[in-house]
Amino acid sequence: MSKFPTVLKRLVLGRPFRSDRLSHTLLPKRIALPIFASDALSSVAYAPEEIFLTLSVAGLSGYAFAPWIGVAVALVMLVVVASYRQNVHAYPSGGGDYEVAGTNLGGRFGLTVASALLVDYVLTVAVSTSSGVANIGSALPWVAEHKVLTALVIVCVLTALNLRGVRESGKAFAIPTYGFIIGILGMVLWGLFEVVRGTEMKAASAGFELHAEHSLTGFAFAFLILRSFSSGAAALTGVEAISNGVPAFRKPKSKNAATTLLLMGVLAVTMLIGIITLAIVTGVKFAENPAAQLSGTPAGYQQKTIVAQIAEAVFQHFPPAFYYVSFSTGIILLLAANTAFNGFPVLGSILAQDRYLPRQLHTRGDRLAFSNGILFLAAFALVLIFAFDAEVSKLIQLYIVGVFVSFTISQAGMIRHWNRLLAKEKDPVARRRMRRSQTVNAIGLTMTGTVLVIVLITKFLLGAWIAIAAMVAIYVLMTAIRKHYDRVAEELKEDPDTKPVLPSRNHAIVLVSKLHRPTLRALSYAKAMRPDVLEAVTVNVDDADTRRLTAEWDAHNFKVPLKVVESPYREITKPVLDYVKRVRGANPRDVVTVFIPEYVVGRWWEQLLHNQSALRLKGRLLFEKGVIVASVPWQLASSVKAVARDRRARPAAGDVRRGFSPSGKRPDAAVPAKPAGRGATTEKPE
Amino acid sequence: MSKFPTVLKRLVLGRPFRSDRLSHTLLPKRIALPIFASDALSSVAYAPEEIFLTLSVAGLSGYAFAPWIGVAVALVMLVVVASYRQNVHAYPSGGGDYEVAGTNLGGRFGLTVASALLVDYVLTVAVSTSSGVANIGSALPWVAEHKVLTALVIVCVLTALNLRGVRESGKAFAIPTYGFIIGILGMVLWGLFEVVRGTEMKAASAGFELHAEHSLTGFAFAFLILRSFSSGAAALTGVEAISNGVPAFRKPKSKNAATTLLLMGVLAVTMLIGIITLAIVTGVKFAENPAAQLSGTPAGYQQKTIVAQIAEAVFQHFPPAFYYVSFSTGIILLLAANTAFNGFPVLGSILAQDRYLPRQLHTRGDRLAFSNGILFLAAFALVLIFAFDAEVSKLIQLYIVGVFVSFTISQAGMIRHWNRLLAKEKDPVARRRMRRSQTVNAIGLTMTGTVLVIVLITKFLLGAWIAIAAMVAIYVLMTAIRKHYDRVAEELKEDPDTKPVLPSRNHAIVLVSKLHRPTLRALSYAKAMRPDVLEAVTVNVDDADTRRLTAEWDAHNFKVPLKVVESPYREITKPVLDYVKRVRGANPRDVVTVFIPEYVVGRWWEQLLHNQSALRLKGRLLFEKGVIVASVPWQLASSVKAVARDRRARPAAGDVRRGFSPSGKRPDAAVPAKPAGRGATTEKPE
Repeated sequence: MSKFPTVLKRLVLGRPFRSDRLSHTLLPKRIALPIFASDALSSVAYAPEEIFLTLSVAGLSGYAFAPWIGVAVALVMLVVVASYRQNVHAYPSGGGDYEVAGTNLGGRFGLTVASALLVDYVLTVAVSTSSGVANIGSALPWVAEHKVLTALVIVCVLTALNLRGVRESGKAFAIPTYGFIIGILGMVLWGLFEVVRGTEMKAASAGFELHAEHSLTGFAFAFLILRSFSSGAAALTGVEAISNGVPAFRKPKSKNAATTLLLMGVLAVTMLIGIITLAIVTGVKFAENPAAQLSGTPAGYQQKTIVAQIAEAVFQHFPPAFYYVSFSTGIILLLAANTAFNGFPVLGSILAQDRYLPRQLHTRGDRLAFSNGILFLAAFALVLIFAFDAEVSKLIQLYIVGVFVSFTISQAGMIRHWNRLLAKEKDPVARRRMRRSQTVNAIGLTMTGTVLVIVLITKFLLGAWIAIAAMVAIYVLMTAIRKHYDRVAEELKEDPDTKPVLPSRNHAIVLVSKLHRPTLRALSYAKAMRPDVLEAVTVNVDDADTRRLTAEWDAHNFKVPLKVVESPYREITKPVLDYVKRVRGANPRDVVTVFIPEYVVGRWWEQLLHNQSALRLKGRLLFEKGVIVASVPWQLASSVKAVARDRRARPAAGDVRRGFSPSGKRPDAAVPAKPAGRGATTEKPE
Repeated sequence: MSKFPTVLKRLVLGRPFRSDRLSHTLLPKRIALPIFASDALSSVAYAPEEIFLTLSVAGLSGYAFAPWIGVAVALVMLVVVASYRQNVHAYPSGGGDYEVAGTNLGGRFGLTVASALLVDYVLTVAVSTSSGVANIGSALPWVAEHKVLTALVIVCVLTALNLRGVRESGKAFAIPTYGFIIGILGMVLWGLFEVVRGTEMKAASAGFELHAEHSLTGFAFAFLILRSFSSGAAALTGVEAISNGVPAFRKPKSKNAATTLLLMGVLAVTMLIGIITLAIVTGVKFAENPAAQLSGTPAGYQQKTIVAQIAEAVFQHFPPAFYYVSFSTGIILLLAANTAFNGFPVLGSILAQDRYLPRQLHTRGDRLAFSNGILFLAAFALVLIFAFDAEVSKLIQLYIVGVFVSFTISQAGMIRHWNRLLAKEKDPVARRRMRRSQTVNAIGLTMTGTVLVIVLITKFLLGAWIAIAAMVAIYVLMTAIRKHYDRVAEELKEDPDTKPVLPSRNHAIVLVSKLHRPTLRALSYAKAMRPDVLEAVTVNVDDADTRRLTAEWDAHNFKVPLKVVESPYREITKPVLDYVKRVRGANPRDVVTVFIPEYVVGRWWEQLLHNQSALRLKGRLLFEKGVIVASVPWQLASSVKAVARDRRARPAAGDVRRGFSPSGKRPDAAVPAKPAGRGATTEKPE
């Protein structure tokens, strides 16, 4: 798999962009953080909740473990951050886990990671949206009552925006992300300050009684603790994002990325611990199933998110702050959902270049292909949200597997990576540094590996199996696609011994239906080709028309014979096809060029009224060996407008991540006047 | 509109078919009758019923008028038949009412008739199916209980059959049609015989009391009689069919057609009167709304069709005969429904040739276009059946308008026709004959005109307005399409003064992505064209690939320069487009030929994996002036299978009517080995 590094470096180092800097700007840390970290940071909004929720099964006695679990998660988080800092330095190309795994462990592992990531994109949308809705719902009762509906609508809106091509601008990220950070940290600090001041803060749910669903002992209890931990591990989702975005950073890319990564880690951990602490201080009761476990609740009690409950308690005398926290949390979560829409095309194009996905996902500006991807993503997310009625606590069971699969594999890859380098490296200083990095990754591997095992054990039956099944399916599909491409490539490979024989002569046929300008143009172009044989052919679907045509033809005396092919059943395709076959049969070494005059129309419904038979004919002719189908277009007035419409290009999802102009104009549209890359056209010597 | 006669004659006289007789057989009267008359004959199954049903509103006193109304309808029928015998002689081309109207009264009238006919096709399907289901339901209770469902299913089945391409063979028509005729006539004769023998025959409903819904007097009563009459006029639907089918008759076409027409008229009238008579004899009670009007009925009484009730009474001692009558009636009605599916394509292709409908409806063998037509027809029929819960008595209100619109217009046309001829004709004998024919048509016109007025007055609010609205809509649409085609034709007309300048030179560009066999073929073909300039162009989406390519290229030393176009955003289309534009800009009088190597694949999903960018590029290049897009196909292994699949051709709807081989094989598929019409290829002198 030696092609991995090259392939990906070229792709994501983004050499091509060089050619016009103007529309390609790199991101300073302060902008990169929100762009790449919103996903990871937002996950602290639901992680603590999941910890408490799971523990609630064991009743209050369970809650006692919350802090420890929090610490454990925080620890894992820091370790993972530390190891990804190594990745960032080692693979500044931004290929991320897929590249690391593919390069060091081989394509299969790369593909496994890719499958896991693709599944995760879907889940990111589902989970983040659901959680976002839950948080907004804590402030707006109506939303809480219509969670599923709201979530579905939001996903649809995001889809629509991304289909239209919404621009990820730094600002669009910065404001909500920093808004969220300020909100949470502010809440934490103010909360702790109040504690110090000895103010009494009670969460709305503090008064309720929490009952264990069933008294757990020994093993069962331990299992619960582990389950709670693996739910809390959800806080780590999105950590890898930065390692995919290195190319978009300002120089020194790796260093800046690493710093941002660290910054993100510290922020996440602080918020996580802060929230857990305040949850305990304010005595929040958050139950897996409130109806059964909570007593003393008012009728039709709607459980508010922990963040909301804390905010309520901390800002009891200043409601606006509560609304601020709830909304900023909700918004960053939706933003996180949106990142999936932008992450997908990037991964998609990498996979497409390796021919695991349809080629057209690689070459950019193919709205269609990306649109399909986006729809694909949205469809599955919608299904999940609907199937698990937008319940974060249910969706989370599917979520974490994928993340830790890629974490683990990528760490394993890194260890290999260092071994490879160490094998070559002589300089002791460098070797020591490498050893250190390798140790970090080793610790990372053990950590993430353990967590993965825990997650699998504790969550498999709860839903993880679905995620795994999906990964397998995707894996199989992608291998199938690759196989197909390889088979075709094999079929197309030129074999050195059989040099292609030059066709002896060029036999040109101009198809004529009427004698109008498109036909005349086709004819004059065909003449310009100076073929060895040039003849016009018309299909007689209608005697009188044909007679009229032949008369006009002779009148013009084009010096080109007009042949009339009979069509007993008023068909176009078959008679022409047969005629061409006959010509081919007569002198097989000729190449037959069929000139088809075509109208180019601008409106879709015009397409229905024109060219239908031309299209069908072309389609069939392509199946004939030794035939070239030459379309001679005639642009109708309406087509001009279409071109104009076409000019209005839109930004494509994932542009910012790939370092494309955040200036809004799609670069290629930015320079409509002078053709792009003119200077770049280089003549190769004969 | 002088083009009408020619256009249509050529089309439907079917000159083209001449060229190979073998697969084109003409119909003897005994086969032509069932093929073209099934629709008209089947309508006697519901016409009498509608008469009684309408009269029932006035109670038994109303029934007294049934015989007279029957006679009136029979009279109209005979007159219409008589006048159509004139049409058949005057217009043996089979253009039918559309041609007659168009030729003599101008396109607008032709179009009006066409709209009416199109609407009628939909209604034929809806009404015939519903009535068929009702008749079968009289024998099978389950069907009666699930009328709507059954009707919908049947329409779907018919649609499927016609989409697949079901063959209308003479036999398929003959058996059920004659079966039906025998059934009804047999019943009538036996019934009368029994009457003579003085056997007592009572219909199941004879015992019930029929109450007038509201006592009608004077004008209201007269109105009811008229309404009943215009419902009975439904018996005339389908009479025009034969006049569209003249070309399919054996020689002397017109004479045979006329005879068949007469035969059909006589049969229809006999059956109509017979049924009405027996209905009175057996004392059938058929109410518009049984629940309210009939007393003495058993609980959940399901009204059986009149035909069924009579059959029950007549064959009281021999049930099989009852089942025979019910089913044969049901089947011929479904057959009638099916004729609409076959009539549509014929009219469609005529309209298409006059450019009122998309061109591709004209050239045959375009399954797609016809399929759309069939789906269109089916969809509307389904809607109607569903909307009027398969109630013949409701649907009939929409039905008759269209029929009489075309009757009336066509008769008016005929009068004009004779005037035209009389103007030229000198020979007194001939003139007398013409006068006679004209008189017949004049009577026809007055009759049908009167009926039309009556229908409009009595049915407009009951549903006729829907049919009329539909006709208007279709009329407008077709004129719009025609306008579009005319505008385009105008735009494309060659203007004699500006002769097309021969392009000075041919600048050929071969697009290269990889150096594989399709590329090599494209290159060698391009060379074979001996263009003035030949260069290869590749888009650099990926530096290393490009470097590799250029290296290989130089290694081969093709004597063709390879130009590399930069693509900062990994797009194919735009850079190539810009390059081509630049070439054009440099020397505008050149024609630029872009050779695109293409893979031809066999399976649809392979299409998704290949050629996408090629297709998009082609699509865009067509918008450039002075550019020829030449696809150089490379047939992949899988494409061969596809061709094989393609060979299996199917019959298309409406073949028999247009005189295409009922032999089952689609003629063009009938001669797969030797190309069709080889002999016919005629070399025109230079």
